[in-house]
Amino acid sequence: MATFTERLSEAVQMKRTPLLVGLDPRWEQIPAALRESAGDETPLSKAAVYMQFCRDVIDVVAPLVPAVKPQAAFFEQLGPAGGAALAEVIAYATSKNLLVILDAKRGDIGSTAVAYAEAYLGREASAWGADGLTVNPYLGDDSLEPFVEVAQERDAGIFVLVKTSNPGGATFQDLTFDGAPIYQHVAALVEEQAAKTSTEGGYGCVGAVVGATHPEQLVDLRDLMPHTWFLVPGFGAQGADASDVAGAFDARGLGAVINSSRAIIFAYRREPYAETFGEGAWQQAVEAATLHAIEQLQAATSAGQL
Amino acid sequence: MATFTERLSEAVQMKRTPLLVGLDPRWEQIPAALRESAGDETPLSKAAVYMQFCRDVIDVVAPLVPAVKPQAAFFEQLGPAGGAALAEVIAYATSKNLLVILDAKRGDIGSTAVAYAEAYLGREASAWGADGLTVNPYLGDDSLEPFVEVAQERDAGIFVLVKTSNPGGATFQDLTFDGAPIYQHVAALVEEQAAKTSTEGGYGCVGAVVGATHPEQLVDLRDLMPHTWFLVPGFGAQGADASDVAGAFDARGLGAVINSSRAIIFAYRREPYAETFGEGAWQQAVEAATLHAIEQLQAATSAGQL
Repeated sequence: MATFTERLSEAVQMKRTPLLVGLDPRWEQIPAALRESAGDETPLSKAAVYMQFCRDVIDVVAPLVPAVKPQAAFFEQLGPAGGAALAEVIAYATSKNLLVILDAKRGDIGSTAVAYAEAYLGREASAWGADGLTVNPYLGDDSLEPFVEVAQERDAGIFVLVKTSNPGGATFQDLTFDGAPIYQHVAALVEEQAAKTSTEGGYGCVGAVVGATHPEQLVDLRDLMPHTWFLVPGFGAQGADASDVAGAFDARGLGAVINSSRAIIFAYRREPYAETFGEGAWQQAVEAATLHAIEQLQAATSAGQL
Repeated sequence: MATFTERLSEAVQMKRTPLLVGLDPRWEQIPAALRESAGDETPLSKAAVYMQFCRDVIDVVAPLVPAVKPQAAFFEQLGPAGGAALAEVIAYATSKNLLVILDAKRGDIGSTAVAYAEAYLGREASAWGADGLTVNPYLGDDSLEPFVEVAQERDAGIFVLVKTSNPGGATFQDLTFDGAPIYQHVAALVEEQAAKTSTEGGYGCVGAVVGATHPEQLVDLRDLMPHTWFLVPGFGAQGADASDVAGAFDARGLGAVINSSRAIIFAYRREPYAETFGEGAWQQAVEAATLHAIEQLQAATSAGQL
C-alpha cells in the first residue's frame, strides 16, 4: 500500500478538491423521517439511524471528495452501540474509496498510547480501520512517538492539535515561551516528526490540526511546517470562509485538507438549501452544499491548481 | 444522589484508603489460563477475557478500595467488542459499590465536548455510566466548561490533566509563561472551576491529574488548589513510592486518590508475589499487592488519619 500522504495527495488530486466532509451525527439535526424510522430512542435504535444517515451522506459525497472525518464523540455518546455504528461507517466509507480520518483527539503515554494507536491506525491492521487519527499533544513528545511509529508502520497518518479554532484555543495555546506561543512549540515538534517521516522532500505521516479562524497563523505555520499536512476545521459553520484558509496550501494546492461538517451534512436546515430542497430532499442539499464548498475553495485558494 | 466529591470522600473514609486500582487489561500480561480460555484471539474472544479478568480483579479489590480506574485505550484496542466489555466492566464495578473513574483523556470543543461529557458522565444518565472521567485541557477554557457543566448536573466528576508523570510531560507542560509553568496556568483554571463547584468550603467536581513522579510539584499544587481532588498516577510500576505522594493529601488524608495499575493487577508477574503465589493464584497476588499498597500509603502519608 502507498503511504498515507501519498494516498491523501492522490485522492485530493483525483477529486480535484481538498474538501473533507465531517460526519458529526447530531441526533436532533438528523432529518425527521430518518429519526422516526428508528421506532424508539434506545442507543441501539439511534445507532442504526446514525449508521444510515452517515451511509446516505457517504453515498452522496464519495464521488466528490477525497476523505471523510467521522467525529468519535457523537458515536461514543450512544455507548457500545455507537462504537459498532462507527466501525461500520468507517468500513462503508473505505469501501467507497474514501480515506477516513477519525476525529477522536486521543492522547496518552507509553504502552497506553501504543494501544490507542494500534486501535485506530491502519486500514487493515487495526480494529477500527481508520487511515488517520487526530491526536492531542498535551502529554508531550514521548506521548506522540508511539502514534508516529504505529502510523509509519501501518501507512497511516496522524494529525496533532496545534492551534484550534475555538475562542478558548487561546487559553493555553497562545501563552508565550521564549518569544513564541505554545502552539508554535507544538508545531516545531510536529514538523520535526513530519520531516523525519517524509518521503523525497514531500510530506510526512504526521500532520497538524490548525483552525481556519486564524488566517494569518495559517500562513506562518505553513512556512514553519513544510513537511506537515494540515487538517483545517472551522470552514463553514464555524465562520471562516474560503479565503481564510488559502494560506494552508502549497503552490500545487496540496498540503491541506479543509473540513466542513454541519454546513454540509445538515445543509437542508439552512438557506438557500432549506427552501430549494427541504428536509425531504436532504441528500440533494448535501450534494449542492458540497459542490458549493468545492467551488469556493477552488476560487479562493491554490486548490484551483488541482 | 450525593455529589461526586461527597461519594468519593465517603468511599475513601469507609475503605480507609485513597488507593485506586487501575484496570489496564494488557493481553500479554493476563494469566495464561484466562487467555487460553478464549479459544482464539479474535477481538470478541479477547474482549470476553478482558471482561472476566477485570471482574476477577474487581471481586478481590471491591472490599478493599474506594474506586477503580479502567483505561479506555486497552478496550478500544479491540474495536467495538472492547467497548461492550468496557461498559460491562463499569457496570460490574458499580454493582460492587466501587466508584468508577474512566481514564479516557477526552477533550474537544462546543457541542462535541458536550457529547463526550454526556457519553461518559453520570452513573445512570450516561450510556457508559462512569462516576468520573479524565479530560485533556489543551483546547482551553471553553473546552472544559461543557465537561464541568455536565459533571455538576449529573453528580459526576472530571479530572483534568495538569502535570503528567511521563518524562515528556515536561515538553509543553513545563514551558514557562509569566513566571509560571504552563501546568500551573492549567492548575489555576482547574482550581477556579473546582472552587466554583465546591460545597461548603470542600472540594468541587473538577479534579486534577498530577503525576506522583514530581513530589515537590505535588506539594506546591496542593497549596495552589485547595478545592481540587487530585488523581495521582505513577505510584507503583512508574517508580514513585508512597512518601512521594504524601504532598497530595490534606490533613485529614483526603483530597487525593492514588492510582496503581500494573503493580497490583499483574502482581503475580513480579516478586515477591511471583514466588509466593505464582500465576495459578494470581488473584491472591492482587489481594496481597493491594493490601501492601494500602499499608504503604497509610504509613507514609496522612491517609493514616483515615
